[in-house]
Amino acid sequence: MPPLLSRIDHVGVAVRDLDAAVAFYETTFGMRKVHEEVNEEQGVREAMMAVGDGPDRVQLLAPVSDASPIARFLERSGEGVQQVAYAVDDVRAAADDLRAKGLRLLYDEPRRGTAGSQVNFVHPKDAGGVLVELVQAARP
Amino acid sequence: MPPLLSRIDHVGVAVRDLDAAVAFYETTFGMRKVHEEVNEEQGVREAMMAVGDGPDRVQLLAPVSDASPIARFLERSGEGVQQVAYAVDDVRAAADDLRAKGLRLLYDEPRRGTAGSQVNFVHPKDAGGVLVELVQAARP
Ligand SMILES: [Co+2]
Ligand SMILES: [Co+2]
Repeated sequence: MPPLLSRIDHVGVAVRDLDAAVAFYETTFGMRKVHEEVNEEQGVREAMMAVGDGPDRVQLLAPVSDASPIARFLERSGEGVQQVAYAVDDVRAAADDLRAKGLRLLYDEPRRGTAGSQVNFVHPKDAGGVLVELVQAARP
Repeated sequence: MPPLLSRIDHVGVAVRDLDAAVAFYETTFGMRKVHEEVNEEQGVREAMMAVGDGPDRVQLLAPVSDASPIARFLERSGEGVQQVAYAVDDVRAAADDLRAKGLRLLYDEPRRGTAGSQVNFVHPKDAGGVLVELVQAARP
């Protein structure tokens, strides 16, 4: 059986100003912006920053409305790491597996994540204070 | 020129009880413990958990004294993501590069990290609220 979580897909960082954060990660850390989009459902404008030449990404997340989870996170905790996302083969199966182990997922059904991916989240209270995202990549 | 940061080496998570956290990550997320040690200098007992079959790791960090940075983190923020660690070829060169860009590093000289690695940290106030660790692996 393949492992439930195959790799760290990205680390999500809450930022106040997306353009400033992208410029900082480019200039200071030498990362490249490989994707940017607005996800209205999640209330965020976000950019994917490539770490080195491999598949690792830092996801910079800025709120587009006060109701966004990122706006609430910034208000409570300030800028910083907001989520850790793991790649899964099948987000429904992974969510069901974790529910069967007693964890609460944020959504009954997967929602649209970055670049056509499907995502769900484990409630941080059920995962040692970490907001764990499950990401199933879009089929090419 | 190779990129300054070559990959996400690990995500570090502060936990109160290391053994309980290892068991949780094994049972719930299917990760494998591939290393465990006490780092007296950092005041932590820590375990490296492998994500899938690749090189990605979650570092679980529990304090061994009240003076540990992890103890202070737990007191201030509770359990959760405490650091994001990037692999670098040369930790001294990477630290010098970031200092030249105006960032403050926690140490003048690299210190001993996990498994004989050499590490330094960017001050979170200079990196958008993220405690950024630079990790140069031990030479084999
Ligand atoms: Co994400
Ligand atoms: Co570390």
